[in-house]
Amino acid sequence: MDVLELAKRRGFFWQSSAIHGPISGFYDYGHVGTMLKRKWEAAWRRFFLGLGETFYEISPAVLMPEQVFRASGHLEHFVDPIVKCRKCGHAMRADHILESILKESFEGLPPKEMDALIRKHKITCELCHGQLEEVALVNMTFPVTAGTGKDARTAYLTPETAQGAYVNFKQMFEVLRKRLPMGLAVVGKAFRNEIAPRNALVRMREFTQAELQIFFDPETITAHPRFADVETARLRLLPAAHRHAVQETTAQDAVASLGLPPFYVYYLARIQEFFLQTLGLPPEKFRLKELAGEEKAFYNRFHWDIELQLGIGWKEVGGLHYRTDYDLSRHQQVSGQSMEVGEGRKFIPHILEISMGVDRNIYALLDLCAREEQDRAVLAFPRRLSPFDAAIFPLVRKDGLPEKAREVQAALEQAGFSTFYDSTGSIGRMYRRMDEIGGPACVTIDYDTLKHQDVTLRDRDSMQQVRVPIARLPDALRRFLDGGDLGTLGKPLH
Amino acid sequence: MDVLELAKRRGFFWQSSAIHGPISGFYDYGHVGTMLKRKWEAAWRRFFLGLGETFYEISPAVLMPEQVFRASGHLEHFVDPIVKCRKCGHAMRADHILESILKESFEGLPPKEMDALIRKHKITCELCHGQLEEVALVNMTFPVTAGTGKDARTAYLTPETAQGAYVNFKQMFEVLRKRLPMGLAVVGKAFRNEIAPRNALVRMREFTQAELQIFFDPETITAHPRFADVETARLRLLPAAHRHAVQETTAQDAVASLGLPPFYVYYLARIQEFFLQTLGLPPEKFRLKELAGEEKAFYNRFHWDIELQLGIGWKEVGGLHYRTDYDLSRHQQVSGQSMEVGEGRKFIPHILEISMGVDRNIYALLDLCAREEQDRAVLAFPRRLSPFDAAIFPLVRKDGLPEKAREVQAALEQAGFSTFYDSTGSIGRMYRRMDEIGGPACVTIDYDTLKHQDVTLRDRDSMQQVRVPIARLPDALRRFLDGGDLGTLGKPLH
Repeated sequence: MDVLELAKRRGFFWQSSAIHGPISGFYDYGHVGTMLKRKWEAAWRRFFLGLGETFYEISPAVLMPEQVFRASGHLEHFVDPIVKCRKCGHAMRADHILESILKESFEGLPPKEMDALIRKHKITCELCHGQLEEVALVNMTFPVTAGTGKDARTAYLTPETAQGAYVNFKQMFEVLRKRLPMGLAVVGKAFRNEIAPRNALVRMREFTQAELQIFFDPETITAHPRFADVETARLRLLPAAHRHAVQETTAQDAVASLGLPPFYVYYLARIQEFFLQTLGLPPEKFRLKELAGEEKAFYNRFHWDIELQLGIGWKEVGGLHYRTDYDLSRHQQVSGQSMEVGEGRKFIPHILEISMGVDRNIYALLDLCAREEQDRAVLAFPRRLSPFDAAIFPLVRKDGLPEKAREVQAALEQAGFSTFYDSTGSIGRMYRRMDEIGGPACVTIDYDTLKHQDVTLRDRDSMQQVRVPIARLPDALRRFLDGGDLGTLGKPLH
Repeated sequence: MDVLELAKRRGFFWQSSAIHGPISGFYDYGHVGTMLKRKWEAAWRRFFLGLGETFYEISPAVLMPEQVFRASGHLEHFVDPIVKCRKCGHAMRADHILESILKESFEGLPPKEMDALIRKHKITCELCHGQLEEVALVNMTFPVTAGTGKDARTAYLTPETAQGAYVNFKQMFEVLRKRLPMGLAVVGKAFRNEIAPRNALVRMREFTQAELQIFFDPETITAHPRFADVETARLRLLPAAHRHAVQETTAQDAVASLGLPPFYVYYLARIQEFFLQTLGLPPEKFRLKELAGEEKAFYNRFHWDIELQLGIGWKEVGGLHYRTDYDLSRHQQVSGQSMEVGEGRKFIPHILEISMGVDRNIYALLDLCAREEQDRAVLAFPRRLSPFDAAIFPLVRKDGLPEKAREVQAALEQAGFSTFYDSTGSIGRMYRRMDEIGGPACVTIDYDTLKHQDVTLRDRDSMQQVRVPIARLPDALRRFLDGGDLGTLGKPLH
């Protein structure tokens, strides 16, 4: 199935400003994509903010002053190796060109060594085969000027939501009554001037991140008060030393055999729980991959990526980063404001970051849930994540059925369900359309509804149908969304 | 009461990146502000998306190609009159300077006439009293370069969410099965390089808008199928011809006496309903103000501002704009893609825009709801809009009370309430703190709770307390939030 074609046709997402000639790396979400994204974000908030007593969400501005990125290191280190064509001027990621030809990863290789490989393998422009210039490091931030005249200041669109949490650490620590661990989550936009955006929502220039920064006392890293809750969880790990296959390792064993602190492993286990239990994704498509020394950012002591196996291969959709005191120390140094806490023993809190790309996760949901069946295409999203909980269809557009359908819809919305009304086709067409949006349940109002006050409830996956009294519909739908079997929720239709 | 001081101390909002020297016009929301903003947005979505059968939210990118703003007119018309000091280089809004000295509005006056007034009244720099240069029109968009080398494209941070709906009109019209009226809402960021940001969240450079673009057949403007629902509503109007006092006019009469089309008046009435019924703001602080010919953007046939009376005077927090076919015609002209619809009769849909500034509305909520009482400060938000539905306090931090409190909290969260746990002070201090956050209800767990399985429920406004069995707490809280009187929900405490 062409998922991108389906995404566009059914209202999930497509290239931004397409009528004016789109710029690569920018996407707009339609109504169905917006609902799906909002449900994913709500699930993320519920799960991760629930992990700590002092974990809250904040909403910082995305345009931030230059000093922030001097402190964070983005002005110095946030660079991509770019190589331009001498003939046509086309710019490419040097590591991507090398990887596509030599079938090996060259991320992080110094420019001089990339130049040497380009010369050795006589690599030319991917468009016109012209000769290439030397590899240059180009900064990926988007600078902007705020104000005018002598009041003008340089600001940058933040390339990660994390900095918004770091600059607010002191203020929030005061507001939240000086307790550690303190978690500050941001679900918001980030911007990177990628030279080669690709794979639709996977590598974008404007994207949404969901990140949780956990500020903690480094002396407490050797334990987590709730470690017992996860210790027997079997984690799907790909350690740097054993890249050939996933090892199923209990959290307990991961501490012992991989030398990881319990505080870190606790969150690895919770992340896996989020993907496999909360989102309900298939375990064999999920793994946690350790980054080796040269692959990690220099400030990360531990860095495991969250990877999902998609049609385009294993893709990173997030990570767990133990950033030590790098961030707060740098902000202290550049701002001159103390980031130390503690009475008696003073220390700069360390940071554990849970970072996820929301758009990548939305793309992954479509990729992992798409099924092509004999006479229909289905997006078999986990029921609770689907853009709409239920679709409401009148069998025909007359004799009071649309009015009755609207009444049933209003009652479901009132009860907190997200619904979608459709009456623009035969019932078969409306079912197919809903299958392609991934709505788990369809509710049909027919002539019997007017007589007996009941409706047909249809399961997207089994296409099974049962008859449910309107009075019991909210309860039946709730149980169905929670995983209940349709057969137990009403009278089977023959 | 100093609302900005309270906003900072209690976690609502403050200047962004303050530790590094903030740039004016940027604010960060803390945890309480984020919750309040999210509740306002949820109320907005529920209300306005509920007004039409084909009204949905979409999420366009905020960085959009230059062509978009060539079409929208922003590159040409989105300018502020700026005057710089010859001596110190400070830049000011010429109209603001004139207004502050001559106590009159000069918005929209041509630069030459502003120059004449500056000379006539010998106006100098507000900082150093140096002589002023000539007034120049400066564009307020933020340009950004996406890509590099020959692939580089100029993009702009969108100055209004509306354009994201317009460029997606055709695609969404297809997806939503070609029905009019079609409503596309965007709740998202917008960016304007204001020369003189002021009044905290009222005039910002990065801000959030909630806008609904209603695309409709211009021939249907003379009626609205549900006009009967609003015709007797008494609208608080300030017509351009009678600026001295609000006239209470029924929707019916507004059509007749003001020459406004019923389709337009219908939405004026719904907007008033949102502010007075849904948000529960005091009627005397609300008015709808008509803009006169020279005050309106040239493409607006009708333009009424939504105004609230705050401590800083009457402030515009939104508007209802009948933009005719201006937007879609311009996008058609610049993109070369037809925006026409209809079989048989072809036409370009007209647009009615409901536009609100979210941050301004949040600021207004704090301003309108702040009460200073003898021994406490209270943010008396409408109950359903408060950042948290309920606070949970254990009387003391021992003897199993915190555990019991966490249990009660979990049950309330499970039932869909937003809660806040606090145990870091005496009960009196915790009540005061919650009053300042604006939480409508406090739930206290004490020794009797362990014996009788009941809790104390306290009303923020009356400070009245009743005793409620834990089993009935979710229901009591729901009824309380819906406006129920506390006295009827439990046994009074003496």
